[in-house]
Amino acid sequence: MSSEFGKILKVSIFGQSHGEGIGVVINGLPPGETLDLDAIDAFMRRRAPGRSPLSTPRQEADKPEFIAGLLGNVTCGAPLCALIRNRDTRSGDYEQLRDVPRPGHADYPATIRYKGAQDLRGGGHFSGRLTAPLCIAGAICLQLLAKRGIFIGAHIAAVADIDDDPLPEQDLNEEFLQRISTKSFAVINDAAGEKMQQAILAAANDEDSVGGIIECCAINFPAGIGNPMYEGLDNRLAQAIFGIPAIKGLEFGSGFAGSRLRGSANNDPWILQDGKVRTTSNHHGGILGGLSSGMPLVYRVAVKPTPSIAKTQQSVSLSRQENTPLSIKGRHDPCIVPRAIPCLEAVTAIVLLDLLLEQ
Amino acid sequence: MSSEFGKILKVSIFGQSHGEGIGVVINGLPPGETLDLDAIDAFMRRRAPGRSPLSTPRQEADKPEFIAGLLGNVTCGAPLCALIRNRDTRSGDYEQLRDVPRPGHADYPATIRYKGAQDLRGGGHFSGRLTAPLCIAGAICLQLLAKRGIFIGAHIAAVADIDDDPLPEQDLNEEFLQRISTKSFAVINDAAGEKMQQAILAAANDEDSVGGIIECCAINFPAGIGNPMYEGLDNRLAQAIFGIPAIKGLEFGSGFAGSRLRGSANNDPWILQDGKVRTTSNHHGGILGGLSSGMPLVYRVAVKPTPSIAKTQQSVSLSRQENTPLSIKGRHDPCIVPRAIPCLEAVTAIVLLDLLLEQ
Amino acid sequence: MSSEFGKILKVSIFGQSHGEGIGVVINGLPPGETLDLDAIDAFMRRRAPGRSPLSTPRQEADKPEFIAGLLGNVTCGAPLCALIRNRDTRSGDYEQLRDVPRPGHADYPATIRYKGAQDLRGGGHFSGRLTAPLCIAGAICLQLLAKRGIFIGAHIAAVADIDDDPLPEQDLNEEFLQRISTKSFAVINDAAGEKMQQAILAAANDEDSVGGIIECCAINFPAGIGNPMYEGLDNRLAQAIFGIPAIKGLEFGSGFAGSRLRGSANNDPWILQDGKVRTTSNHHGGILGGLSSGMPLVYRVAVKPTPSIAKTQQSVSLSRQENTPLSIKGRHDPCIVPRAIPCLEAVTAIVLLDLLLEQ
Amino acid sequence: MSSEFGKILKVSIFGQSHGEGIGVVINGLPPGETLDLDAIDAFMRRRAPGRSPLSTPRQEADKPEFIAGLLGNVTCGAPLCALIRNRDTRSGDYEQLRDVPRPGHADYPATIRYKGAQDLRGGGHFSGRLTAPLCIAGAICLQLLAKRGIFIGAHIAAVADIDDDPLPEQDLNEEFLQRISTKSFAVINDAAGEKMQQAILAAANDEDSVGGIIECCAINFPAGIGNPMYEGLDNRLAQAIFGIPAIKGLEFGSGFAGSRLRGSANNDPWILQDGKVRTTSNHHGGILGGLSSGMPLVYRVAVKPTPSIAKTQQSVSLSRQENTPLSIKGRHDPCIVPRAIPCLEAVTAIVLLDLLLEQ
Repeated sequence: MSSEFGKILKVSIFGQSHGEGIGVVINGLPPGETLDLDAIDAFMRRRAPGRSPLSTPRQEADKPEFIAGLLGNVTCGAPLCALIRNRDTRSGDYEQLRDVPRPGHADYPATIRYKGAQDLRGGGHFSGRLTAPLCIAGAICLQLLAKRGIFIGAHIAAVADIDDDPLPEQDLNEEFLQRISTKSFAVINDAAGEKMQQAILAAANDEDSVGGIIECCAINFPAGIGNPMYEGLDNRLAQAIFGIPAIKGLEFGSGFAGSRLRGSANNDPWILQDGKVRTTSNHHGGILGGLSSGMPLVYRVAVKPTPSIAKTQQSVSLSRQENTPLSIKGRHDPCIVPRAIPCLEAVTAIVLLDLLLEQ
Repeated sequence: MSSEFGKILKVSIFGQSHGEGIGVVINGLPPGETLDLDAIDAFMRRRAPGRSPLSTPRQEADKPEFIAGLLGNVTCGAPLCALIRNRDTRSGDYEQLRDVPRPGHADYPATIRYKGAQDLRGGGHFSGRLTAPLCIAGAICLQLLAKRGIFIGAHIAAVADIDDDPLPEQDLNEEFLQRISTKSFAVINDAAGEKMQQAILAAANDEDSVGGIIECCAINFPAGIGNPMYEGLDNRLAQAIFGIPAIKGLEFGSGFAGSRLRGSANNDPWILQDGKVRTTSNHHGGILGGLSSGMPLVYRVAVKPTPSIAKTQQSVSLSRQENTPLSIKGRHDPCIVPRAIPCLEAVTAIVLLDLLLEQ
Repeated sequence: MSSEFGKILKVSIFGQSHGEGIGVVINGLPPGETLDLDAIDAFMRRRAPGRSPLSTPRQEADKPEFIAGLLGNVTCGAPLCALIRNRDTRSGDYEQLRDVPRPGHADYPATIRYKGAQDLRGGGHFSGRLTAPLCIAGAICLQLLAKRGIFIGAHIAAVADIDDDPLPEQDLNEEFLQRISTKSFAVINDAAGEKMQQAILAAANDEDSVGGIIECCAINFPAGIGNPMYEGLDNRLAQAIFGIPAIKGLEFGSGFAGSRLRGSANNDPWILQDGKVRTTSNHHGGILGGLSSGMPLVYRVAVKPTPSIAKTQQSVSLSRQENTPLSIKGRHDPCIVPRAIPCLEAVTAIVLLDLLLEQ
Repeated sequence: MSSEFGKILKVSIFGQSHGEGIGVVINGLPPGETLDLDAIDAFMRRRAPGRSPLSTPRQEADKPEFIAGLLGNVTCGAPLCALIRNRDTRSGDYEQLRDVPRPGHADYPATIRYKGAQDLRGGGHFSGRLTAPLCIAGAICLQLLAKRGIFIGAHIAAVADIDDDPLPEQDLNEEFLQRISTKSFAVINDAAGEKMQQAILAAANDEDSVGGIIECCAINFPAGIGNPMYEGLDNRLAQAIFGIPAIKGLEFGSGFAGSRLRGSANNDPWILQDGKVRTTSNHHGGILGGLSSGMPLVYRVAVKPTPSIAKTQQSVSLSRQENTPLSIKGRHDPCIVPRAIPCLEAVTAIVLLDLLLEQ
């Protein structure tokens, strides 16, 4: 197991959902960078649970304590370690899962992988809670990127069968990205957002859940960053993005829709605009041959409906070797999409900064 | 740049499309494995160009010479190196590209990344031709997996707007996968395949190209292989798959369609079947929490339409700093999807074997 | 910067000497291993300061808190994180060092490397104090190796110009290694040890310091573990061992002395002994071609005299750009050799377990 | 097995001594660097066998063919691959070794590691012949370093019990290093060199061999390059250096001798000299805390006497499970030290360039 990614900037996540704490170690941060610790806290609150009827009622402040890597609020070049203590844990909820694996969860394969020794409480190390330390790392990288003029934002492109408006091809600027992604419900079209929230509540009422699609975007990332083949911008993003629980699909630019087009329609013509080389459209999503093109980086991810649902489901008892119904107790998000938004911004920021530092 | 992937089994690709040769170095192959060299050659022919009116007329035998790592046809534990000499190169075709970048290609970002020193001939190191050494590595890994009872196959799920039948949920066996994936046009539904080929030829006649979707599947991969977070089965596959040129999207199991479902519909119930723990459906595509579930691994990739088209396109002259039309000469595939089938089988085989060896 | 080593078992160290805390994250520990936490504490006390007139009077309990990776005292397969809070810190001692670098320390190159932003207090991340989290990781690995029959011990082979007796070629067993290495002063010949301690105290009285040599040994490590070339047993040990501050030399088996011999004298003849293949001598130190031979692993390291001495030394003022005398305040070990013993056992245990897990 | 090292600049070695060929793949070379291919050939000749009565009579031109990574003689940014065909192979010499392992060689542990499938001919992948591709990589890196003002040289510090003069502390300049290291017998004191050569010939006459010590030096490497703990200048060098067969010891600066000194004698005082921060002595060998100090990098390695000797030795028959005498046939160097000189320069150049590129 290696819960780590990155090459120059290495992010290593530790912790279990209901253990003592969760945290992150970051190797390779540039020294001498002044961090806005309040902005990190604010970013963490965007992911934190218990803030809305749409999310789990578990209460966690998720305020990181910085153990190492800072002198005051300045990076000192040593590995940064940030720690979050777990507080509102109710471990009794989870004991039956050692015998009866939940559909859509890693319980069964983890039992084989870890010979039954894994921490099942709250999903253990597999829990979405582990995206909190990821967001600490991301919040730091977002600040370092912003100083270099690079901005990242994301919106809820779909929940269930309701779609948000697409990202505008023009006017993708810092202000727009900031405004959309920090909304309490991060959509471009608020009427669509209203319907999405109703769909989430309806699912919750039915003891069920819904999934959705998130679209993420980075602007002003310079051209020519990345590598061909296996260490490219897309490869590195893909490896890291599938580390966020519930992500089951990823497409860059026109993605699956683009595979239906002809080359003449999907190719993005080059033009000179104000002395800069750009493309007139962005079907390539800012990546060509593993390298950044200088156009906005745009990708979409498919988020599966939360597998933890209260509704009775079919499973097996591993000890009795028989089929058995399962009702999952515990507190869960009926839709994880809104809280996944900052996670995708985080992972994108980490990968982009890592690639920038590699050049 | 690092044109390498894998952890225990490391695959390192070298070469440029019109250079002296292309090849692969593989570290970490188990010792004492007898290889069927004829089967490797047969696998290579599935990817080789010049075999059909649907592909580039460039003639390359693509028969690997084994420089190291074998004693006779048995792996000796030392790094394996296989080399393919380039033969049918026409480098004069490519000189204008140093000034006028092709839409949909990496020419422009590569010029920045490599300060203009990159080998542009035939796409250089960015060329799809570099999937030939990948296929050597894949052909070897496929044989090692087959000895362990694991089989991989893929089919053309779509070309342009024409869809093949989906993979059957039942009866996914070695014989079926083998039969479909080695067809001269790898579809389940031959009538659909006929239409796809017409669409490809129509695009070619229009000096244009089409893209498509490939679905790949692995069976009998044991449960509990992989890791949570960033070194999981999905993460490793994703990193490697986006190393194949023209791949712009990837989804596991129900993927983007699954994100539209409710949890109760997308979750796969566990059951006991003949004493084995299985799921009654496979929306999770064989992966849960980065670990294999024991169900078939199923994923789909979006292949963009070949960016090299004869049709005149819009570009810029970097030297003259002005917009300019571009007509691309050279020999190109009007649709890369059929030849990408063995590449995806190859990359899947490498990642699966690497993860098996890691346990 | 990457304060991490290992391949399957990855050990990542964080912290600064006078920061909030120091700690370690370990990825890749086998699941289901029961740890003896008291034995870990006992091992930590062997390295801890303030226990003897030979070491710094700084008082640190160095008792690790386990944040993640355990369920009770059993490894759960998730990354293990252990934390030690710093307590007895006196940061005021160190401020002048930002301007006047200490001879024999990394102050000056670190100022260039980190643009002056590094944490200088107590040596920051460069401090020998960072071997405490290394010892946590080592104590765990020693337990896992002991369960597999493999034992590691070390002794003080020399302090200044006084030599201990050499390790016996025969009778290198668990009991012997355990007895020697856990002595309060870890020598085979106690009379020599007495002289060494006098030499240390004499140096301390002179506001000076002494260095020495440590010999480390592992028994029962099976033959055939490791790799040729750059990932071998010697390569991995060497990379990790030079991570312990003050180590300036390393030799395996007969080492430098062996380079003076003829091949016929330095070669170790193979014999069958009780049905096992062994060598009659061990000039090769248990390593041949990067692989373990099945004979005891034996190496020696040179530990430089502690560079921090109270005696006035010559240095420069970086701000005033002039030569200046320097008197170092703070609390320091007049000889680091005794406290380095468990550090070498720790690093050896980590590397051996990592290589065992890789096979 | 991973016959690879480096982080940004990755060097991967392949081949067996008597296989089709040997070679190297280098990822991460800067693009646009013009190489002097004749200088590479000249460097290769310094390592090549068959040039003197002191070395094996095996005749190998060792002229590399560049398969990839160059356009003409300019690096294009793609992985560089260079290949050397093996020519003068006599494989029949080695067959008995599958049963009777040679003392001082990896035959026995390799048989366990590779289940008997390893290529034994000429030592296979364990052969010193694999330093030829290392030297190709090193020759390239030496050129790139020289353009940046950094020069590397080495001399034979000892053969058997005869010592060369030490490196001068002053006047270590490019001209001196170049002159010494390219001598046909690379010593500072030619009278000592004469005695060394007599000792080598005497050993050869006795069907025996001798070892020695090599001292290597790099000048003008800037201060502040490297990392604390496990990715430092010393750690990286150590990992790579022990990849050269027959190296059994390594010490930086005053090394083992320094461990006998007091801190006040071993510390190197800082001074300002011509406006530059330097030390008045160089016991630290140019490395402090894993970082370069700006002073010359100086290290010494212990080279064991060639284990292949014609003299009859004691071994075992693995098949018959009995002790048996062994006479080794084949062609061998009575002393490998002279031919190891360029290998150490090579490995040093690779590590230094890698660290420079990482900053």
